[in-house]
Amino acid sequence: MPTTEFLDQLRQIVGASHVLAEGDLTAYEQDWRKRVHGKALAVVRPGNTAEVAAVVKACTAAQVQIVPQGGNTGLSVGSTPDDSGTQVVLSLTRMNQVRHIDRDNLSFTMDAGCILQNLQDVADKEGLLFPLSLAAEGSCTIGGNLGTNAGGTQVVRYGNTRDLCLGLEVVTPQGEIWDGLKGLRKDNTGYDLRNLFIGSEGTLGIITGATMKLFPQPAAQLTAWAAVPSMEAAVRLLGLSHQHLGAGLTGFEVMGQFALSLVIKHMPQLRVPFAGLADAPPYYVLLENADSESEQHARERFEHLLELAFEDGCVLDAVVAESIAQAHELWHIRESIPLAQAEEGLNIKHDISIAASRIPAFVEHADAVLQREIPGVRLVNFGHLGDGNLHYNVQVPEGEDGKQFLRDKEGLVNHLVYEAVAAFDGSFSAEHGVGALKVDKLEKYQSPVALQMMHAIKNALDPQGIMNPGVVLAKS
Amino acid sequence: MPTTEFLDQLRQIVGASHVLAEGDLTAYEQDWRKRVHGKALAVVRPGNTAEVAAVVKACTAAQVQIVPQGGNTGLSVGSTPDDSGTQVVLSLTRMNQVRHIDRDNLSFTMDAGCILQNLQDVADKEGLLFPLSLAAEGSCTIGGNLGTNAGGTQVVRYGNTRDLCLGLEVVTPQGEIWDGLKGLRKDNTGYDLRNLFIGSEGTLGIITGATMKLFPQPAAQLTAWAAVPSMEAAVRLLGLSHQHLGAGLTGFEVMGQFALSLVIKHMPQLRVPFAGLADAPPYYVLLENADSESEQHARERFEHLLELAFEDGCVLDAVVAESIAQAHELWHIRESIPLAQAEEGLNIKHDISIAASRIPAFVEHADAVLQREIPGVRLVNFGHLGDGNLHYNVQVPEGEDGKQFLRDKEGLVNHLVYEAVAAFDGSFSAEHGVGALKVDKLEKYQSPVALQMMHAIKNALDPQGIMNPGVVLAKS
Repeated sequence: MPTTEFLDQLRQIVGASHVLAEGDLTAYEQDWRKRVHGKALAVVRPGNTAEVAAVVKACTAAQVQIVPQGGNTGLSVGSTPDDSGTQVVLSLTRMNQVRHIDRDNLSFTMDAGCILQNLQDVADKEGLLFPLSLAAEGSCTIGGNLGTNAGGTQVVRYGNTRDLCLGLEVVTPQGEIWDGLKGLRKDNTGYDLRNLFIGSEGTLGIITGATMKLFPQPAAQLTAWAAVPSMEAAVRLLGLSHQHLGAGLTGFEVMGQFALSLVIKHMPQLRVPFAGLADAPPYYVLLENADSESEQHARERFEHLLELAFEDGCVLDAVVAESIAQAHELWHIRESIPLAQAEEGLNIKHDISIAASRIPAFVEHADAVLQREIPGVRLVNFGHLGDGNLHYNVQVPEGEDGKQFLRDKEGLVNHLVYEAVAAFDGSFSAEHGVGALKVDKLEKYQSPVALQMMHAIKNALDPQGIMNPGVVLAKS
Repeated sequence: MPTTEFLDQLRQIVGASHVLAEGDLTAYEQDWRKRVHGKALAVVRPGNTAEVAAVVKACTAAQVQIVPQGGNTGLSVGSTPDDSGTQVVLSLTRMNQVRHIDRDNLSFTMDAGCILQNLQDVADKEGLLFPLSLAAEGSCTIGGNLGTNAGGTQVVRYGNTRDLCLGLEVVTPQGEIWDGLKGLRKDNTGYDLRNLFIGSEGTLGIITGATMKLFPQPAAQLTAWAAVPSMEAAVRLLGLSHQHLGAGLTGFEVMGQFALSLVIKHMPQLRVPFAGLADAPPYYVLLENADSESEQHARERFEHLLELAFEDGCVLDAVVAESIAQAHELWHIRESIPLAQAEEGLNIKHDISIAASRIPAFVEHADAVLQREIPGVRLVNFGHLGDGNLHYNVQVPEGEDGKQFLRDKEGLVNHLVYEAVAAFDGSFSAEHGVGALKVDKLEKYQSPVALQMMHAIKNALDPQGIMNPGVVLAKS
């Protein structure tokens, strides 16, 4: 079919103004970190699920490949077209309505294009909590969160996006609509399609709607900052926190001293507790404790925990935020690490996970290997220790040219890190997804038996290979 | 291949004493509720994963179908052979070792044939909690729990078996071993095979090992029993409990007055609070509150909740157990309902789920329909209201012949109940699985789009149709 005729078909489905085929489409064609610049045949912006289905049917009939896209904030290049100019970007952002709030079922149902922060706000206005929270929450969409099974800062208590989802609405590669939005907490009626689509990054179908869990708002939430003598001590503190805060433990972030030194250097207005000292300890932990009772009770529990931790020796010094503003300040330090890294210059990011018990040994091993193989390398280590998830990033050695270093050493750095991760039975992709960026890593590090099953599933559900080809799995 | 030659192959793999082809094999060939009596070619009992893989390869080569079996305690006929005498029952019960406990990662890894109660005990000895708990725990296996995604009494806090699982080891229908036992809490490296196998009832492969979550033991656990004026009030109490106990709420069971009257009648030694009175309220709730602090604190929280509930009017009367013995007594009443039902005579069981918000309207509707269509019918309604899961059972009318009633009315009863469930967007299979028993219900009530995807997945992973054919999905 000639392109003009095909585009006319799309225009008839979604309206002419929602088929973008000219002008500056950079926002849709380029990934968040600007690593990849693609070229789309068109960007199509359907307004509802029926339109998504019709667009998919038109694309399938014309054998045009589809790249589903939410807020396009992903870090693994999973939602941008290739440079062929033949793929359609199907943007869900016009589908941004909350469809239904069910207070008694503690759930709500929404379009996939809803911005995460808007969903947090909707829950908040109902006096409820939607706990998914991550750096891109102001622009990422729930469909994207589901497509990548996003993590974030509350996983230690509430789980990944997967764990927050009660149901999906999906348009299949054949353009059929699967309505799985019953909002049930128990439902064993056949294979778990919901979890199959979650984390499949738009390669098996397009998530158009979701029913997500809500939670009661805690009566109080407190934040503490602790200096710890080692990663081993941080893991011990995690165990004590689980034991004494129970499900009250909603956040447990670890930060290395060098990561914080970059914050101190580039954001001098931030007051970083303990980390600026000459004999600063090597690691810091940010803890959050949510309490269903009262602030006073939360404070007592926190103080009790910290007393035990001092006795144990796993905490050297600690502060508990006295106010919400101070709590925000502490979190702001943690969240400033990526920006401070960028200010310092180019760096190589990793999003890895390892069983918490093995993280101290992993860090010791990986630090040593990298420093031996690449003298002067600087390790920016921080992340969600409560989930065994580290952002184990590598900053260019001081004084070296960043671009040159990346050209020469990025492959080696990734190789060393991922080999170390594999040696410790870890994952090279904890919460950012595989995207197009890490397809080769999946081929290398995923079990061949698992890979074979994944390809079989892809071929079974999308035999034409229409949906987001080259993402997650290599094109077969 | 001649049968004797094939059996010799199996004997070479697992040892002659672990291939049972003669004598009384009823325990393996008959389902728990004795609804189906099959006939196996042989029962094979491999001792490790490599043996399972070799058995599967032998069966695949000989085109012999395999029925994986754990404790064979399922309620939906998912683990017994058909009556052809051609299928092999592959029993996992010899694989019953805990392989590894990882305290700092709060996880442990075990063979699929471990008895659930033994796993609870292992966790307990470590001072940790494995919260999966259900009636058959003394004989069911973790592999069976995973295969059916079992629920139980702690789901409101800890989720279904699915939510407790960090990883699986699976033998595929091709006899390959997939080792997914890394124990990671975040891992987005391709499609979610783990959740696909969980709940697939042995139709996609055989779960041979698992890594499961552990939790800190609560410092105290308290049980309360409340009489409530209506199902609506019970749902309101659920909301208050979520709000004021937070994640402390570990159990929330509802029981109808008639269900308890059967316990009072057939187990006169049990003292059932409030339900024996002439003007007994229609519903009762059993609540459990786990506390990471102390018994005193748990008691204060419970009393605070109950005060609010009295004020609200959603609780008429309540007791909080004073001792562990008394708490066990209260749970024992709840757990005695199925036995009391059996003592009363034949009955028709349903395992349904509906959004908690819609349960009061559902119950009113379903009760009315059944009483209108089948005069004298007696409704035994109880279940895990915290998860929207009711065991909405139907007892034969007083004085009628049970067998005759089942012959005449079982189809109609099921039809009326499942149509009502469908009208309220519920599920006909909440926690017991589909098995062979409810395949026709899946065909009828599952979305055709979803069904088509499930068949495509089955065909992709098990193209020969070797694994547990006729379970979950109709043979294609």
